[in-house]
Amino acid sequence: MGARVLVTGADGFLGRPSIEELLARGLEVHGAVRAAHGSLPHGATEHAVDLLAADAVAALIERSRPTHLLHLAWYTTPGQFWNAPENLDWVAASLALVRAFAAHGGRRAVIAGTCAEYDWNSDYLEEGSTPMAPRSLYGVSKNALREVLTAAAAPLGLSLAWGRIFYLYGPRENPVRLVPSVITSMLQGRPAACSQCLQQRDLLHVQDAAGAFATALCGDFAGAFNVASGRCLPLRTVVEMLGRLTGRSDLIRFGERATPADEPARLAAATAILQRRIGFEPRYDLAEGLAQTVDWWRAQCAAR
Amino acid sequence: MGARVLVTGADGFLGRPSIEELLARGLEVHGAVRAAHGSLPHGATEHAVDLLAADAVAALIERSRPTHLLHLAWYTTPGQFWNAPENLDWVAASLALVRAFAAHGGRRAVIAGTCAEYDWNSDYLEEGSTPMAPRSLYGVSKNALREVLTAAAAPLGLSLAWGRIFYLYGPRENPVRLVPSVITSMLQGRPAACSQCLQQRDLLHVQDAAGAFATALCGDFAGAFNVASGRCLPLRTVVEMLGRLTGRSDLIRFGERATPADEPARLAAATAILQRRIGFEPRYDLAEGLAQTVDWWRAQCAAR
Repeated sequence: MGARVLVTGADGFLGRPSIEELLARGLEVHGAVRAAHGSLPHGATEHAVDLLAADAVAALIERSRPTHLLHLAWYTTPGQFWNAPENLDWVAASLALVRAFAAHGGRRAVIAGTCAEYDWNSDYLEEGSTPMAPRSLYGVSKNALREVLTAAAAPLGLSLAWGRIFYLYGPRENPVRLVPSVITSMLQGRPAACSQCLQQRDLLHVQDAAGAFATALCGDFAGAFNVASGRCLPLRTVVEMLGRLTGRSDLIRFGERATPADEPARLAAATAILQRRIGFEPRYDLAEGLAQTVDWWRAQCAAR
Repeated sequence: MGARVLVTGADGFLGRPSIEELLARGLEVHGAVRAAHGSLPHGATEHAVDLLAADAVAALIERSRPTHLLHLAWYTTPGQFWNAPENLDWVAASLALVRAFAAHGGRRAVIAGTCAEYDWNSDYLEEGSTPMAPRSLYGVSKNALREVLTAAAAPLGLSLAWGRIFYLYGPRENPVRLVPSVITSMLQGRPAACSQCLQQRDLLHVQDAAGAFATALCGDFAGAFNVASGRCLPLRTVVEMLGRLTGRSDLIRFGERATPADEPARLAAATAILQRRIGFEPRYDLAEGLAQTVDWWRAQCAAR
């Protein structure tokens, strides 16, 4: 295919497995990271660049001349990203990145969106039919970026797809988030304080999300697609599965944390576009994926 | 009020009269222009800055420490701005500007939006009830910027209003646009080639638009408001009035230009928010405003 891919957020939770998926497809992969530390998967070229500095971004694009762009980087500090002013910086940086990419011969871009673009008063989130009504600055910012880039695609001569990420899990997830925090508590013999965990969510293994993005990037589907498994279940079920996998169900403490008042009860994802238009099927089922994730954390804990 | 206002696009069609209106209200006014040429109204401080260079913008804000921001600058080359990639640059630049403004003590911002944010399948465009469905990259970009800044206002500690400009006319309008091109043709004795001019539009004198923005900036209304006269009439009527004012109705050539296929038949503007919430009433009626505009062009032509 002769493609040269630039991946942003290359050393992130989703970035690393995305690079693996792209390399596995035989592509030339360049990864943009904030600070170089030689940790990208073998075969990828690492570039240290501050994506918030438009000049540095333009210089990187001129130097690496990517034909394909997988833009995953954003401000993602847990607990803070929802309404942080940094969302504005990342809208601006993403526009500058795509402008520079298109101006130097870039032709195909896939960008990470979010299920938070949708109206969460709906409990089944489907591309093209569920209204867009983001309630956080993060969701508004991603949605606004999508609107602008979608309208700009033709004038820029770009083919553009937009992958709306639901709930990912897997190795290297930020340890403050639900799945890793429950796993590490259990592995370390500490009580796992949870909310009632009655809310229903679509969980997808991060390697499958990476596969979805890599498949989309190599294809020509234009528009928004959900990055999700298509199975929606109570988070309680996930925590109980982790209890069985670690043998420490006794440490689960449902109800010790409050459920946020504005937490929607159910966010199920349509996956027809991902499966039929993009042609991607997840490889992990949840039990397998959680077992693999527990094993990864077990190895981390053992290594310390 | 002790306010220090930064006006962007300060030497533009709307910028100059806006500065006059702000000075008339006793405010300290700083005007950002692309290139310094000492042409701002007397009493305003001129700053040459490339608003597309984030560092230069941050430096200007740090230096001038505005409490109030009137952001009018954008890419506006007639015939090109509707779908130009430069719209992306101005979304990014506007986000950087507002971020820097808020970070250095800015508290009140009013930003120029456009009637092109609305769904033009509606023929009466009203804030809060007419759907947003921009069909141009320009409209999409302004609308997306508004969405992000509206959601960001609380986290940034900003009071924000958004003035949707309809159709302005008056001195210093770009001569390729309808009103000045018809006037100058007539004053120079050349035929004024027009379309059938059956489309109905809301025309507002630019000095009244400036008054609306200045009044809004000094108030505390938060949200979107139409900047319009509330009177919608066929452009044909406007051209005929210009014929009478110049005494050269004989030069009018209706139908010599094609009407663009996607030109909406009628775009009337609700003005209840402008008049009641912001408390601004236009001073010019159309006959007076067009007469004043013809006089201004007559003086220009005579001076050459």
